[in-house]
This record gives sequence, structure tokens and C-alpha cells, in this order.
Amino acid sequence: MLEKTTRINYLFDFYQALLTPKQRNYMSLYYLDDFSLGEIAEEFQVSRQAVYDNIKRTEAMLEDYEEKLKLFHKYQKRKKVTKQMKLCLDEGKLDKVMLEHYIGLLDELD
Amino acid sequence: MLEKTTRINYLFDFYQALLTPKQRNYMSLYYLDDFSLGEIAEEFQVSRQAVYDNIKRTEAMLEDYEEKLKLFHKYQKRKKVTKQMKLCLDEGKLDKVMLEHYIGLLDELD
Repeated sequence: MLEKTTRINYLFDFYQALLTPKQRNYMSLYYLDDFSLGEIAEEFQVSRQAVYDNIKRTEAMLEDYEEKLKLFHKYQKRKKVTKQMKLCLDEGKLDKVMLEHYIGLLDELD
Repeated sequence: MLEKTTRINYLFDFYQALLTPKQRNYMSLYYLDDFSLGEIAEEFQVSRQAVYDNIKRTEAMLEDYEEKLKLFHKYQKRKKVTKQMKLCLDEGKLDKVMLEHYIGLLDELD
């Protein structure tokens, strides 16, 4: 189970191009630069509540995009496959049959 | 160079979850089921021009999503890598170093 902050960070990474500049600013300050709501409010000359509402709405949008496009979900699955491939490779166990299996898994994820 | 129709079909595939039901309907009838604009207009009791405008707007939206998220672009790149891996594998040329290189390429695309 991922921590909520980590999950939001990933979703932000995948979908930030779909957000408005203001949404991106607030999210980036709050989640990446660890600003408090009050500090962001001061920076943009708006109320703390306005910042809070904007961030909550943006989080909901990110979850909505993920529900529709599943980019983070697919990313996690692909990472699992390539990690498994590396593991097998390091152990000298990656033969033709297994490799074909892994390539098939990756192709299915697209 | 991909034909325009093929490209739109791919973009539709990647981003249809972000469209409205009406947009999805029109696009699907026009691009997947090969209906004419006139036939779609009749089906939905609207003008041919309205269908045309809706489809053109949707196409522009799809291109806009692609510019922002690049899902089709990344898909093509990943396919190239897995295809290359299969080729090497079939020719018995896929050694540890090359495999690590390919896995690295795939990881970078995420």
C-alpha cells in the first residue's frame, strides 16, 4: 500500500500536463517543495481555504484521470516486469522461453 | 509516416476515456464503423455540419492530449524496443549486455 503523498506525487508526475498553471503551481509547492497551505496562500495573496480547496479539487482530478487512463497502474506493472527480468538476468536464469514470456507481458500492457 | 486515419485511430484508442459519450459515439461510427457524416447526422437527428464540427473538434482534442501526454509516441518507442529484442532473440544474439541495454531503454520510457 502506497502512502497517499507518494501516490499523489506519482499521479502529479503523470498528469500534470493536463492541469492549469495555477493548479500545477499549488500542487508543486505543496507536494514537491513542502510549503504549508498558509505559505502558499501568502505567496499568491489568496485565502488559505482557497488554496486548500484548489488542491483538493486537483487531487480529485488526478484520481479521475488515473481512473480513466491508468497510466500509474500500467507503469507499476511494467516496472514489475522489467525488475523481474533484471533479477532473472542477474541470476543467469533468463532463457529464451522466459524472455518471450516477459516481452509478451510488456506488449500486453500497451 | 502514418496515414492520418491510422493516427487518429490510435489516438482515439489512447484517449477515448477522456471524451464525452457523444464525442465517442461520433468518432467510433466515423472512424471504426466507416459511417459517412450524413449517416451519422441522420442517426442522431442533427445536421451534417454539426457532426463534422464535432468530429473536427474531437480530433483537435486528441492531438492536444497527445501533445501533452505523448502516450502514442511512447507506445511506438516501446514497440520498437520489444520488436528489436524479439529479433535479437530469434537470431540468438541477445546477450546479457544487450538485454540490459534494452531494459534500460524501456525503463527510461516510463
